[in-house]
Amino acid sequence: MSEKLTGRVTVPTDVDMIQETKEIAERWGADALRDCDGTDMPDELKKMPAKIYSTYYTTRKDNAWANANPDEVQQVYLMTEFYTAMSQGELRIPLMKHLYKDQLKPNTIHDIKRWWEVVDRTTGEPLVLDAWEYDENNQEVIILNPDHFHDYTVSFLAFIIWDPVHMYNFITNDWQDVEHQITYDVRQPKTQKYVIEKLKRWMKENPDSDVVRFTTFFHQFTLVFNEFAKEKFVDWFGYSASVSPYILEQFEKEVGYKFRPEYIIDQGYHNNTNRVPSKEFRDFQEFQQREVAKLMKVLVDICHDNDKEAMMFLGDHWIGTEPFGEYFKHVGLDAVVGSVGNGTTLRLISDIPGVKYTEGRFLPYFFPDVFHEGGDPIKEAKVNWVTARRAILRKPVDRIGYGGYLKLALDFPEFIQYIEEVCDEFRLLYDNMGGQSPYSHFKVGVLNSWGKIRSWGTHMVAHAIDYKQTYSYAGVLEALSGMPFDVEFISFEDVIKNPVILNECGVVINVGDAYTGPSGGAYWTNEKVSSAVKAFVAQGGGFIGVGEPSACEHQGRYFTLANVLGVNKEIGFSMSTDKYNWDEHSHFITEDSNESINFGEGMKNIYALDGAQILRKDGQDVQMAVNQFGDGRSVYISGIPYSFENSRMLYRAIFWAAGMEQEMKKWYSSNYNVEVNYYPATKKYCIVNNTYEPQETMIYDGLGREYSMKLKANDILWFTFLED
Amino acid sequence: MSEKLTGRVTVPTDVDMIQETKEIAERWGADALRDCDGTDMPDELKKMPAKIYSTYYTTRKDNAWANANPDEVQQVYLMTEFYTAMSQGELRIPLMKHLYKDQLKPNTIHDIKRWWEVVDRTTGEPLVLDAWEYDENNQEVIILNPDHFHDYTVSFLAFIIWDPVHMYNFITNDWQDVEHQITYDVRQPKTQKYVIEKLKRWMKENPDSDVVRFTTFFHQFTLVFNEFAKEKFVDWFGYSASVSPYILEQFEKEVGYKFRPEYIIDQGYHNNTNRVPSKEFRDFQEFQQREVAKLMKVLVDICHDNDKEAMMFLGDHWIGTEPFGEYFKHVGLDAVVGSVGNGTTLRLISDIPGVKYTEGRFLPYFFPDVFHEGGDPIKEAKVNWVTARRAILRKPVDRIGYGGYLKLALDFPEFIQYIEEVCDEFRLLYDNMGGQSPYSHFKVGVLNSWGKIRSWGTHMVAHAIDYKQTYSYAGVLEALSGMPFDVEFISFEDVIKNPVILNECGVVINVGDAYTGPSGGAYWTNEKVSSAVKAFVAQGGGFIGVGEPSACEHQGRYFTLANVLGVNKEIGFSMSTDKYNWDEHSHFITEDSNESINFGEGMKNIYALDGAQILRKDGQDVQMAVNQFGDGRSVYISGIPYSFENSRMLYRAIFWAAGMEQEMKKWYSSNYNVEVNYYPATKKYCIVNNTYEPQETMIYDGLGREYSMKLKANDILWFTFLED
Repeated sequence: MSEKLTGRVTVPTDVDMIQETKEIAERWGADALRDCDGTDMPDELKKMPAKIYSTYYTTRKDNAWANANPDEVQQVYLMTEFYTAMSQGELRIPLMKHLYKDQLKPNTIHDIKRWWEVVDRTTGEPLVLDAWEYDENNQEVIILNPDHFHDYTVSFLAFIIWDPVHMYNFITNDWQDVEHQITYDVRQPKTQKYVIEKLKRWMKENPDSDVVRFTTFFHQFTLVFNEFAKEKFVDWFGYSASVSPYILEQFEKEVGYKFRPEYIIDQGYHNNTNRVPSKEFRDFQEFQQREVAKLMKVLVDICHDNDKEAMMFLGDHWIGTEPFGEYFKHVGLDAVVGSVGNGTTLRLISDIPGVKYTEGRFLPYFFPDVFHEGGDPIKEAKVNWVTARRAILRKPVDRIGYGGYLKLALDFPEFIQYIEEVCDEFRLLYDNMGGQSPYSHFKVGVLNSWGKIRSWGTHMVAHAIDYKQTYSYAGVLEALSGMPFDVEFISFEDVIKNPVILNECGVVINVGDAYTGPSGGAYWTNEKVSSAVKAFVAQGGGFIGVGEPSACEHQGRYFTLANVLGVNKEIGFSMSTDKYNWDEHSHFITEDSNESINFGEGMKNIYALDGAQILRKDGQDVQMAVNQFGDGRSVYISGIPYSFENSRMLYRAIFWAAGMEQEMKKWYSSNYNVEVNYYPATKKYCIVNNTYEPQETMIYDGLGREYSMKLKANDILWFTFLED
Repeated sequence: MSEKLTGRVTVPTDVDMIQETKEIAERWGADALRDCDGTDMPDELKKMPAKIYSTYYTTRKDNAWANANPDEVQQVYLMTEFYTAMSQGELRIPLMKHLYKDQLKPNTIHDIKRWWEVVDRTTGEPLVLDAWEYDENNQEVIILNPDHFHDYTVSFLAFIIWDPVHMYNFITNDWQDVEHQITYDVRQPKTQKYVIEKLKRWMKENPDSDVVRFTTFFHQFTLVFNEFAKEKFVDWFGYSASVSPYILEQFEKEVGYKFRPEYIIDQGYHNNTNRVPSKEFRDFQEFQQREVAKLMKVLVDICHDNDKEAMMFLGDHWIGTEPFGEYFKHVGLDAVVGSVGNGTTLRLISDIPGVKYTEGRFLPYFFPDVFHEGGDPIKEAKVNWVTARRAILRKPVDRIGYGGYLKLALDFPEFIQYIEEVCDEFRLLYDNMGGQSPYSHFKVGVLNSWGKIRSWGTHMVAHAIDYKQTYSYAGVLEALSGMPFDVEFISFEDVIKNPVILNECGVVINVGDAYTGPSGGAYWTNEKVSSAVKAFVAQGGGFIGVGEPSACEHQGRYFTLANVLGVNKEIGFSMSTDKYNWDEHSHFITEDSNESINFGEGMKNIYALDGAQILRKDGQDVQMAVNQFGDGRSVYISGIPYSFENSRMLYRAIFWAAGMEQEMKKWYSSNYNVEVNYYPATKKYCIVNNTYEPQETMIYDGLGREYSMKLKANDILWFTFLED
């Protein structure tokens, strides 16, 4: 233990940073060097005894090719705003009105009558083809005889004539005289051949690179700018920009039904993760995954043929790769690297199966926004590290790394020193975990519309950003990311295929607003789904519902699992029925909670059914309640923004729901700011202070033996578990 | 004017109150006497020069008849709780588990396989008849092979073996040794004949009665008690207890389709006013109205044949009479009397068309709950009178009256004095109104699922009581009840039949929670409805939406009128779309509002579309916004509990929406605690202080001329309008 561990760390470098890079690599124990956007790898360093990462762009930085092949520029499905036929006679719909003309250009190369769609949004019906025309000069669709006062939209294909990430960097950094990079589609035949050959050439030209860091593969997540070059629509999981007539014709052939733009447009919602996915979208996603994986493998094989590793950056053009999907693990990728914002995003990377290693890119970037006079990079680094560490202790990334301009960081010697400590701490914990799974009490299933494929990600509409409406989902996942449970994401389709899949779990959680992807919407009217959950609970399982779990107004109830949850939501239909259950009860679950619990926005109009116990209410709005159903238990929570206190409340709720209260005080800290993890492979356990202040606590080991403990701010302490 | 007016007042009396009644009648100027539940009319008073009202019960107080004809006792459709098939094998559903056995008895006289229904609430399908049996001994339905973990309910007919109002009085007053009154069904053949003959006999036996006050006619509103004899379900508008096989067979014949219990049960929601009514329920309501009116006319004609007036009490067994319906006005009733709780319930009575006069029963009742030592009956009387007076000044009842034990009131001489003043004030204002309509700026339409038939009543699930979830509807109606507009209730069916009906309005208001009767739910996906409203606004009309107006998730929007309202609700589907319109604006509508406006519970997740102007927001929740649509205007308000301040805000919103801001300061008070009404028939106008404190204000007359004015608490001042 006293011997200093090295490795598992990647540092950025630049041409004028040769000596400095060597010193930093030495201090941080780094074993890999990387170039970044806007930096170059100096030749001298390529000979160092470290791996050399080279950023590789498959879809851009080659406008000559893009301009020569305009039909193979990447495309995106867009929907106009709603336009009302305010007067009799033709209605003109301008396609580009609120879009950025330098980013997007309507695709009139392919048959617009086949690939565009004009929809009457009042009736939901698409217009017949001769009901509209296109005025190319004005970029307007003309509806010849619209129904008076109906609303219409046009769904159309546009070429992405400026790569959205390049554009974002350009705008953000106020670049001058930089050519807009056009993004071409590697899935198309000419470009595919070209890109493969180009990569082969690159292999020869870059013998010193050890790792090809793809940024990324083929399809950009949806990112559209408005007329003021401000973000108009962003979905980090969005497939809208992974389309082209060439691809869609293949899709049609595979599924055997006719493609409609509406399958991608989805009423303008674009199948974002908060939507319950349609069958057609699931089909398309499946098709894309398989095709993307096939082509990824071609590129990865080229790397391997040239004795280089292939690493994927989880971002930019990652759409269709789906690391948690069925095909990804067969690609043969060596590694995935991604940006770590918190515990959830750490697990979004570290849980990826089928690669040799994962790497987390930690914050802050060595960029001038933080590394300027008066800046406090240590604070950001500390928050980032401590927040992610909870999750690392459950499932570590295999490497950590930093990005940006090394030169900037060197002006902050205390920062350099702090990162050195982080690197040492990371290597030690990695070593102590012993490459095996940490101790887990039981499995917790998160039941939603997406399941495994959106592991840790359903609530994020942009990467690592959650929304006002999704704070509870974010809260539950961030809490779970560092808890000693196996966490599995289960989709309703999984349950329909195999209802007993739930029996592997001690507790199943359903979180979200009514009718959303996380909550499940109409899936709850599928008797296989509701019966499977009821069977699971009745036979002793635990169910935790947060927000509007199982909500879908159906046959007299808003929560279809009302009799499991013991609560329902009054949406105005059952006000005639008297409600008498309003008493609050003290309970195991709230033993560590304050008088006032922060339920976030909470939930209005929840009431308790007979037999349920209310734990907290706000006037006539129940915020938390528990219920018995058969041999099992259920917990309802109205909302749960992430905090250590709420995380503890959820922890207690999980144990109570599972009927395992008596097991809770093993590998347990009485102070909820401190957590304990045990690693059977090494018999090591750690006690970790998640706060920036000292903490005192009682610790319970695996035999329930308790002892008191003091920890310094951010402390992580390691011990060996002695069973006698 | 100096001559004291008399009449228009009804007082209660009792056998031992002969002299006192005469004195009170003199002081209050009363011209009618009434008996009450538990009091009797002394013979001596019957000879007074006053009308004598006699309470008459058509459906109870005759257990001999009820017991002799158990098949014609009134019935009600009930639904059991939900029962889950927790284990394999039969599922037993106890019918009476949470019901009061002394009130209700399952009807097994009629064919239960025809009139009962067992429903799988997991699938929504009714069970085939041989899938269930009935165990009469245990009063349990046995489902022989239920699907494992499905939920089931039983819909069944029960006899009402204790009249719910009699039971309520019995329980509330802790009566002892009083026989439970059984309620029989006058619509059935034997009972109908019997009741008609009995009424004819009564006529002969009661020659001194001038007015037969029916309490009421045939069908009790739905009122069901639980096993503890506490209220379980109440719907003052409910039709569930207006059923019997005899009636339903007639209904089937009329509509030409097979009856299902579900048409009445409605998933356990029982077609309450907050539900969007189904076609089948509307058919049933129509059928009942026609049949009830037919039979009412028989009884009314008997009164007329005996030179008595027929008066209906708006309560108890009023179901099917529907005073605002098509058939009521042809019955020939002389009068309707009802209880006045506030302005809205006043209009619920005074707006009834087709009767010679209406009478309001004012509060407090002369009952010991208020008239006891230390009680403050004046306060209650004052609040009741001042609250209702706003509405009386728009559309007066023709008479006012009181109920209870006169003896109790006499102990409070100041109360007697206050009521004397009220009676004088009422007669003066009635006289000054001149029997014509007061000045009205323009028509305001309230658009909902029920229209005219539920004028002033849609938000009340029990009479004069509104609910947590309906405070905005109550707030808007209470405000409108005293405003100088013609108020018309318009249903979506009205609009479908005749879209231009809206053009009679200056402003159309839609208020309510998503998917409820007031809001409209799926009606908004009917293109005739949405197009009619859009046409109305585009051509210059005003639209005001409160709560979740036009809400029905459809084709990319939650508010189907989003482009009219300028706002939409983020239900989680469009979080990927950036929202940039967040600035607040000052506005004509909020000129009289405080910094902080009370929006009640308000609304979460409302955001403004481009072009709309936000007037108030709470974080990222828009609470009020305005928008232009074509030549018209729209106002969105998240919630509007009733207060004078909010009433003023709504008043300004109505003028602004109608594009009539410049007309507002006519018959106007700058102080919103004071209102002005003008009566062209008499050229009189009044200035009324709605508060219990003195007020100062600027008054604007019909020519916009302004002058200052001081009013005492509760004051009403009358002036003559001089146009030069």
